[in-house]
Amino acid sequence: MTPGWPAHTIFIVKILVVLAHPNQGSFNHAIAERAVKTLNKNEHEVIFHDLYAEGFNPDLPYDEILENEKIPGEIKNYCSKLAEADGIIIVHPNWWGQPPAILKGYVDRIFRTNVAYKFEEGDSGEGIPIGLLKARAALVFNTSNTACNREMEAFGDPLETLWRNCIFDLCGVKTFYRSAFGVIVTSTAEQRRAWLDEVQDTVNRYFPSS
Amino acid sequence: MTPGWPAHTIFIVKILVVLAHPNQGSFNHAIAERAVKTLNKNEHEVIFHDLYAEGFNPDLPYDEILENEKIPGEIKNYCSKLAEADGIIIVHPNWWGQPPAILKGYVDRIFRTNVAYKFEEGDSGEGIPIGLLKARAALVFNTSNTACNREMEAFGDPLETLWRNCIFDLCGVKTFYRSAFGVIVTSTAEQRRAWLDEVQDTVNRYFPSS
Repeated sequence: MTPGWPAHTIFIVKILVVLAHPNQGSFNHAIAERAVKTLNKNEHEVIFHDLYAEGFNPDLPYDEILENEKIPGEIKNYCSKLAEADGIIIVHPNWWGQPPAILKGYVDRIFRTNVAYKFEEGDSGEGIPIGLLKARAALVFNTSNTACNREMEAFGDPLETLWRNCIFDLCGVKTFYRSAFGVIVTSTAEQRRAWLDEVQDTVNRYFPSS
Repeated sequence: MTPGWPAHTIFIVKILVVLAHPNQGSFNHAIAERAVKTLNKNEHEVIFHDLYAEGFNPDLPYDEILENEKIPGEIKNYCSKLAEADGIIIVHPNWWGQPPAILKGYVDRIFRTNVAYKFEEGDSGEGIPIGLLKARAALVFNTSNTACNREMEAFGDPLETLWRNCIFDLCGVKTFYRSAFGVIVTSTAEQRRAWLDEVQDTVNRYFPSS
């Protein structure tokens, strides 16, 4: 580690970026684009999924839950990319305190047993899972039309818990950072520029050039 | 209201039951079946969606977000059924502290502006929404392979917040009750029978015969 970098800085090479927004001209796309540009500038390898553009099918079928069944090739491919990632960046709007369905389905289908976590031998699935992801840091960027203080006071900011605790901590990714930008619908061009700069700073902080 | 019923008892006629589990032989299906049977016995009209069986498409396209765009007929139909419901029952497994993607997409697409909530005139979408649903009570039945105490301690039981606060309270449904059954994977036939009886008791309590 380069001297002078803060302790949470991690030098990594393969970063997975997953985006879920149905509008190709959305601010979410601008965030993902800035993140990818920053990673490229820092000479990381970027794996990028725009789930809507790729037509990802979010419905986990029963066959895929059964551990020994064969999963489709395209799903295996998504799984490999998740398993290989040294770092992960997720970008999505806050819809009902949760990700859009297409991204929820990405988690349902790709964060599989024996890819993202496993159970101890002899455990029938009711125990505490062991995280398997090799990614050392995960960043989540959200947009919202609910003011951040209302999101916290009225709803307890569930996206923080969902991504930090229920997903990444469980899968072994212990370094986690999340930013929520809003209110988007009434934001000025200047605010949006500042938010994109904040995305760039965050990506530089966690995934700097080596 | 019949004397002797507890204060939260509501006499209603049209109950919407929404089920999301990919296995037609799942315990979730048994829960939904028991709920429907109890509602029928109490002479309520039941609207039943088995989202997987119906092949519901959970991906909200951009066109549907724009308020004045036309939405597909089948989506309008789902919306009407939600709007007409005097009571709602949701049945799903806990996947990552959240509903399966197919059910998240049902919320994304069907709990629309001007169906489930609206904004004050002159509000561009950043304000506090006003609930529009006429349903007077919502019940949520979940299954889980995480012990209830671990779900609370490690994750803060996000499904409670998501359904109670982020969705139903926001849409104007103030009477809310949720039961989480688990650990399913190691449960005995006797436990499952007792859980189904608990479902029946809950449905009878909130949606009794008039």
